[in-house]
Amino acid sequence: MSLKTSKEIMEKRIKIGITQGDINGIGYELVFKTFSEPTLLDMYTPIIYGSPKVATFHRKALEMNVNFTTINSAANAVDGKLNIVTCFDEEVKIELGKPSETAGTAALLALEFAMREYEQGLFDVLVTAPVNLETMHNNAIRFLGNEDYLQSKFGDDYSSLTILLNRNLRIGLLTGKMAVKDVPEAITKELIVEKATVFHESLKHDFLIDNPRIAIIALNPTTGISDSNGREETEQIIPAIGELRDSGLQCFGPYAADSFFSSEDIWKFDGVLAMYYDQGMIPFRTFGMFEGVSYVAGLPLVCAAPVHGVGYEVAGKNMADETGFRNAIYLVSDILRNRRVDDYAHRNPLPKLYTAKHDDSDKLNLEKEEETE
Amino acid sequence: MSLKTSKEIMEKRIKIGITQGDINGIGYELVFKTFSEPTLLDMYTPIIYGSPKVATFHRKALEMNVNFTTINSAANAVDGKLNIVTCFDEEVKIELGKPSETAGTAALLALEFAMREYEQGLFDVLVTAPVNLETMHNNAIRFLGNEDYLQSKFGDDYSSLTILLNRNLRIGLLTGKMAVKDVPEAITKELIVEKATVFHESLKHDFLIDNPRIAIIALNPTTGISDSNGREETEQIIPAIGELRDSGLQCFGPYAADSFFSSEDIWKFDGVLAMYYDQGMIPFRTFGMFEGVSYVAGLPLVCAAPVHGVGYEVAGKNMADETGFRNAIYLVSDILRNRRVDDYAHRNPLPKLYTAKHDDSDKLNLEKEEETE
Repeated sequence: MSLKTSKEIMEKRIKIGITQGDINGIGYELVFKTFSEPTLLDMYTPIIYGSPKVATFHRKALEMNVNFTTINSAANAVDGKLNIVTCFDEEVKIELGKPSETAGTAALLALEFAMREYEQGLFDVLVTAPVNLETMHNNAIRFLGNEDYLQSKFGDDYSSLTILLNRNLRIGLLTGKMAVKDVPEAITKELIVEKATVFHESLKHDFLIDNPRIAIIALNPTTGISDSNGREETEQIIPAIGELRDSGLQCFGPYAADSFFSSEDIWKFDGVLAMYYDQGMIPFRTFGMFEGVSYVAGLPLVCAAPVHGVGYEVAGKNMADETGFRNAIYLVSDILRNRRVDDYAHRNPLPKLYTAKHDDSDKLNLEKEEETE
Repeated sequence: MSLKTSKEIMEKRIKIGITQGDINGIGYELVFKTFSEPTLLDMYTPIIYGSPKVATFHRKALEMNVNFTTINSAANAVDGKLNIVTCFDEEVKIELGKPSETAGTAALLALEFAMREYEQGLFDVLVTAPVNLETMHNNAIRFLGNEDYLQSKFGDDYSSLTILLNRNLRIGLLTGKMAVKDVPEAITKELIVEKATVFHESLKHDFLIDNPRIAIIALNPTTGISDSNGREETEQIIPAIGELRDSGLQCFGPYAADSFFSSEDIWKFDGVLAMYYDQGMIPFRTFGMFEGVSYVAGLPLVCAAPVHGVGYEVAGKNMADETGFRNAIYLVSDILRNRRVDDYAHRNPLPKLYTAKHDDSDKLNLEKEEETE
């Protein structure tokens, strides 16, 4: 990287790859609305992986006045314009508000096209518009969401973690969209240590939190009453927390999910690690879905998506709320800049002054509160 | 019942049994604050199962000016007074804000005393102040909450269901505080049919909703994508919903938990049946814990409790919020009256006029929305 000052880092224009998502949903509407703000085109060069024909269809349905530039690769992207990459030339049937195999295939084609371009270094960060997992998954490949997909692309050298974010909360999901019956076995000490470490590193480097505090949620309700109410806490989660703390990570818990998410405790942590999808997703979405973003941490590619779905019920009606999508745009660019700042700061480390040293022993004491309900 | 008109039913004074809960927590504070409203003593005769000595200790700690009458049985309860039944005479050690075996034992003694008096017909309805399951459960008996306890008292002739309630929501819990690993096997078609029927009957008779609509939540996330994401929906839940609808019950679903609880759909139903404890309790508590009430439906005894915990962190500080407890008082008395009104109305049924007939085929059509995410 040739950037020499953090000012340069902050001002460098960011190329954002964007996948169109489900063509029967609200993907193009989110893109159009977000980049109708001229300032966003000053800061970012958006590169939409999709189809100009589909974009034109949506523009007409939405009765929106949008200009875009058609290109065949991000290599030809024009700054200050909404660039749309032609990922497929065929006419595709668009059925607004309906799930279809065609839409699933189109979503996948766009995503795969984008990943090939990313591998060539043609954009910096990725935001994905919502897809319908059912129609995506019915295709030849198994698609269970961004984390699963990207993890398989980047391979075993990396460990990824989905983090749900809104203004105040960062909830990591230890396990993904698996059957509930498979969750208890998947919760091992090793997995918790691995994912909490990914979380910790992301909070440090992606969010620039020096010494992040992570709350770890219990799997079972009434954790600790007796073995018949579940042994994962005593056998896996508590030992994992011990190991993490021995390594100097500020990890606390396990906290009972129902009381934790409804208490003030939730605001005392930089991150919350939930044991399974619904355990993290239910309170996250309850707190406010339309601003929420899902980010895949731990990978070289910074990738995020709005938490909400394809919005079939409002597709083509110009009624979609683009807040979550715009937040995803802001998030990936903030994280990219933070990583650059962090790399830059650590390139030629100065010896710390005594007074500037962070005292790592300054840990949050929640022991007393853990005793109570 | 000798009541002859619904006016008489509404005006009949109700005897409310109340258990003290955890003596190291906020139980007495909730009682004192709730009955400091003189109108409540006009409507109800509260009978607190506990200890005058403990009550005196709390009154002093809270610096509250409360009068109460000491009795040895609800048989001697005085209308218009706060009656405290001496359930044990011993001096017990009160350690405000701390879990203790003593407090667990005291909570259990009061509850058992109350149940013996209920069996003698000495009060009408029961409200329980919060207990600490850990110290209760460590005693000789297995105590896992009101439903479990009452179900064992009333036996197999009855099927109970815990319903969480606040102003807008009624969430039934299909399974209780069990280990997550045991949940998938517990979810059978039979259990869903049984508990949804209890829910339906309670909504009809306890809440006087003529033809209640019940949403049934899926167990697994991304329900329906593939077998590897869980088969409980196709094998148990969907067949159960079919059977329930064949019996004329308005049951819908299964809905994916994360999107259901964050969508407007939640307001379209009279009840929501969650598959396991955290699935129902997390969104319920997130929506607002301090007004929430937990009610055990399906039993002859109407029993409820506030959803929040023992409040060790504010015990003895006069800082507890009694809203949930007061709501529990209102709820049990409303349900008792509703049951009486319902029994009275059905004693000599009049033939329905044609124009007054409810059209049972007027079902909620959510099919279209179920197709979307």
